[in-house]
Amino acid sequence: MLKYTPPLDDIRFNLEVFGYPALIAALPKLADFDLDTAMALLGEYSNYCANVLYPLNQKADQQGLHFDGATGAVTTPDGFKEAYKGWVDAGFGGLAHSAEHGGGGAPFTLAVLGSEILIACNKSFSMCPGLTTGLIDALEAHGTDEQKHRFLGKLITGEWSGTMCLTEPQCGTDLGLLTTRAEPRGDGSYTLRGTKIWITFGEHDLTENIVHLVLARLPDAPPGIKGISAFLVPKLLDDGSFNHISCGGLEHKMGIHASPTCVINIDGAQGWMLGEAHKGMRSMFVMMNAARLNVGIEGVALAEAAYQAALTFAKDRRQSRSLNPARQEAGQAADNILVHPDVRRMLLNIKATNEALRGLVAMIALAYDTMLHHPDAAERAAAEDRVALMTPIIKSFGSERGFLNVSEAMQVMGGAGFTTDWPVEQHLRDVRIAMIYEGTNHIQALDLVGRKLPLGGGRLLQQFAAEVTATIEQASAVPSLAAYAQALGKEAGRLTNTTMELMGKAMADAEEVGAAASNYLNQVAINTLGYVWLKQLLYLEGQPDSAQKRGKHQTARWFFEGVLPEAALYAKRVSVGKAPLMDADVDLL
Amino acid sequence: MLKYTPPLDDIRFNLEVFGYPALIAALPKLADFDLDTAMALLGEYSNYCANVLYPLNQKADQQGLHFDGATGAVTTPDGFKEAYKGWVDAGFGGLAHSAEHGGGGAPFTLAVLGSEILIACNKSFSMCPGLTTGLIDALEAHGTDEQKHRFLGKLITGEWSGTMCLTEPQCGTDLGLLTTRAEPRGDGSYTLRGTKIWITFGEHDLTENIVHLVLARLPDAPPGIKGISAFLVPKLLDDGSFNHISCGGLEHKMGIHASPTCVINIDGAQGWMLGEAHKGMRSMFVMMNAARLNVGIEGVALAEAAYQAALTFAKDRRQSRSLNPARQEAGQAADNILVHPDVRRMLLNIKATNEALRGLVAMIALAYDTMLHHPDAAERAAAEDRVALMTPIIKSFGSERGFLNVSEAMQVMGGAGFTTDWPVEQHLRDVRIAMIYEGTNHIQALDLVGRKLPLGGGRLLQQFAAEVTATIEQASAVPSLAAYAQALGKEAGRLTNTTMELMGKAMADAEEVGAAASNYLNQVAINTLGYVWLKQLLYLEGQPDSAQKRGKHQTARWFFEGVLPEAALYAKRVSVGKAPLMDADVDLL
Repeated sequence: MLKYTPPLDDIRFNLEVFGYPALIAALPKLADFDLDTAMALLGEYSNYCANVLYPLNQKADQQGLHFDGATGAVTTPDGFKEAYKGWVDAGFGGLAHSAEHGGGGAPFTLAVLGSEILIACNKSFSMCPGLTTGLIDALEAHGTDEQKHRFLGKLITGEWSGTMCLTEPQCGTDLGLLTTRAEPRGDGSYTLRGTKIWITFGEHDLTENIVHLVLARLPDAPPGIKGISAFLVPKLLDDGSFNHISCGGLEHKMGIHASPTCVINIDGAQGWMLGEAHKGMRSMFVMMNAARLNVGIEGVALAEAAYQAALTFAKDRRQSRSLNPARQEAGQAADNILVHPDVRRMLLNIKATNEALRGLVAMIALAYDTMLHHPDAAERAAAEDRVALMTPIIKSFGSERGFLNVSEAMQVMGGAGFTTDWPVEQHLRDVRIAMIYEGTNHIQALDLVGRKLPLGGGRLLQQFAAEVTATIEQASAVPSLAAYAQALGKEAGRLTNTTMELMGKAMADAEEVGAAASNYLNQVAINTLGYVWLKQLLYLEGQPDSAQKRGKHQTARWFFEGVLPEAALYAKRVSVGKAPLMDADVDLL
Repeated sequence: MLKYTPPLDDIRFNLEVFGYPALIAALPKLADFDLDTAMALLGEYSNYCANVLYPLNQKADQQGLHFDGATGAVTTPDGFKEAYKGWVDAGFGGLAHSAEHGGGGAPFTLAVLGSEILIACNKSFSMCPGLTTGLIDALEAHGTDEQKHRFLGKLITGEWSGTMCLTEPQCGTDLGLLTTRAEPRGDGSYTLRGTKIWITFGEHDLTENIVHLVLARLPDAPPGIKGISAFLVPKLLDDGSFNHISCGGLEHKMGIHASPTCVINIDGAQGWMLGEAHKGMRSMFVMMNAARLNVGIEGVALAEAAYQAALTFAKDRRQSRSLNPARQEAGQAADNILVHPDVRRMLLNIKATNEALRGLVAMIALAYDTMLHHPDAAERAAAEDRVALMTPIIKSFGSERGFLNVSEAMQVMGGAGFTTDWPVEQHLRDVRIAMIYEGTNHIQALDLVGRKLPLGGGRLLQQFAAEVTATIEQASAVPSLAAYAQALGKEAGRLTNTTMELMGKAMADAEEVGAAASNYLNQVAINTLGYVWLKQLLYLEGQPDSAQKRGKHQTARWFFEGVLPEAALYAKRVSVGKAPLMDADVDLL
């Protein structure tokens, strides 16, 4: 069977590049997690993923889930229960949660970078702890002491799992339309009624209880998004009795076949309000950044797994002779396909974008820890800005490029990649949903352009641009990096112009934001990946020659020559504006 | 259930734009098929596809195929046998094959444009008649009278089906590596032994017999591609006895679940040579252009089907308010999603590329009929050049853009598109293979740059470029088209430069071709689609105002503003050259 090698070396490299050791030294709360300790933890974690979860991945996809219409029970594929128990026993679920309630207290950064490996090994499985993490974050931020005491311990160990019950048939993107009702019972709790759809791990057999976070309206709720409250609704009440929240069916999907996507019927369930009345969206926002970072990482994870498969295939495959007689291997009827420029082009396309995305995720994960734990308020505020700016980019560009990268890996493999003899066809099916859920990619783009850019008069992007400029200057002074610095400088200038032009148009007409946002996000993303490459290469300037250093240089070269030119196309598309879209008569579509 | 509407209006439009009536008037052999007759035939054909084959499509995907390991029998999904019988009874299989052997004698153009509808309705099913057509073409071109008499009649009616047995485990792209052997039996026939893989409809229960076209080596064959001969190997001999060619198993694949992809074991089967010894590749080349055009059309077909689904979904879906207060519908909590610029952007992206691709296919299909049937040798030769130039572009760009377009249609639909409640997830899985089979897309690009461009000192592209220039001049004189003409003129100039630069580099170093070919093909493709749009709009200048005319204008506007700028990116990537790829150390990948 194909082996997946967790990219621990590259993770360590990025932790060094983006200043993990210095950050840990500055954060007393995380003092126990120096770099060696962190990598040892990730090593253990990734061993479990690669040895236990990865071998289940394809079998689980093919077996799928079983839904019992009579009881509403959902049975996960063979091996999931045992693998989940092992996961809980090892304490991986609670790795980065607060020690106070039984968590490991590790940096958020380790949880996020570890999740790449978990997802690469078994994306369907990863969604159960992923959703639970979201609920834990919401509880830690908004729960009462009593609620924390009641729920947090078992959620952190993973003995219980959590869900997010947001979507209803008439509302996905637009939660303001939701209609689930919550009536006060007079004892401080509420009775909930409604139907939720697309609830990930809304029902399953991995844990003894499931705690649903349900968005609903109180009887006196104002309409729209400002009338939504959040409720904790356990599947089983404390006495073990059934709480009238149950699975009404499963969606049948292109991918993530082993992750139950449930219709959840709420028929008079008892719930407890989390946070304040009508302010349920606040509880959502707490976990949104972390959840969106995680979705971006899904693209990185599956592109890495697909890349490894394609490279393994390519190294073993002989087909056609090299176009260069000097490369033709004597005594062979065909050469290894890695002699063909186009095979290298495809592999380098994946590597050049995916390794930079991993770096970007590491950088933002560290900013997240800074935001949570830094003793200096200004540092926390700056880090919060950075997280706010980059989260939609990581979610959208990470998932979109992840999909394209997995497809490119399949192309390297030809027909083999399309068959279930290799895992890539599953990766392609599994990764596609990442562009859709947790806010579609266009919602990310609107968040970037409509909310993040205007904040503080453009402060978020200006601060980042200043850092990019400083990095370009630094790289310009290094002979081997000067050409890259110049190329990125040119793109950065173009981005400034695009931004000014777009903001000007947007002030006059909000529809201009909608027309331009998706391409603008991609333009910023390509610029950002160029910045990440410069940071990585600058770090390596201080290091002796090594295979890693040479590998990074050749991959970065492809990025700056083959990938960076995309930014100009996105800029050009931003400049088109809304007219050809909004002048169109939809009846003629 | 969702309805698929065969795009007959757009097909008729393109037949008019690209001169079907004049061509038919010039080709005595096709005189029976004037435009109205042609459209009536396509109407009947498409009714069968939409009413019988489309309703089977998703069920067949979900049920899949059954392989009986004991007997080697393959059972197709429920309904396929009856649908295939109806297909044969209606004479659709033989529509465009020679009347001499019982075919309908219709223009190739009708078969090709009809195949868009067949594929959109049921891609798996379409592959059985598709492969049979390839065998018929090879037999008509290279068969002896006796072979034609023996096989053609039943293949043309569809009572028998055909296959192409090319690929072996060690050779996909590189057929020179094949090892299947053919020994003369002394009676003019041969005994074949070997194993073939990825044989589409290599075994099934739709027909009473299957005729395999098997590539193999004679005992005295020179090595490589010049030692390959082609053999006709029926599954059942004339006396009904089994001919030792059987299915050893089925591939399990991401898509086309109802199209059997077989391992074919040839254990002493009797075969008859088609064409000359060691010249089997000639028989392949006969059918290659037609087969590759058909694969390009798979992209058009499934993008059209996915577009229709996405538009149906969008028209019915309300979510969020318009960013423009003037568009907000009173009394509604949310607006129809077609008010959002990004939804329009995605739909127009699909429409602007797919409608131009359909036009390009019509143009080249007509050239194909010209090549086959025109009384004037110079016309035939010019048409052959055009088919040779455009076939790799249609195959590669059509399949690649088809995949991206289906994915974009899914994005319009959000989570719904990822579920089996809609057909788009199947279309995405089914369309992906088109980038791989019938020569991977990079093989098409090498064909374009390495074979087609150098022919006759660059004659093929020069002649086409002259036509593009003339069309640009014509459009420049029309006020409503002048801006588009100017934009395309600029791209055409860039393409000339790119071509000169690439040909110069290629003469010195063939690896430069490999490094640039895929991006170069896309650059030519985008230019060509721009040319198709100008042809369509120029035709409409002579027509009165209509919904069709307005629709084409708004779609073309998006093409020229939003899509055409891609060409500059491809040009930029071509100019990168081989160095960053071929300087790379593959051990560092």
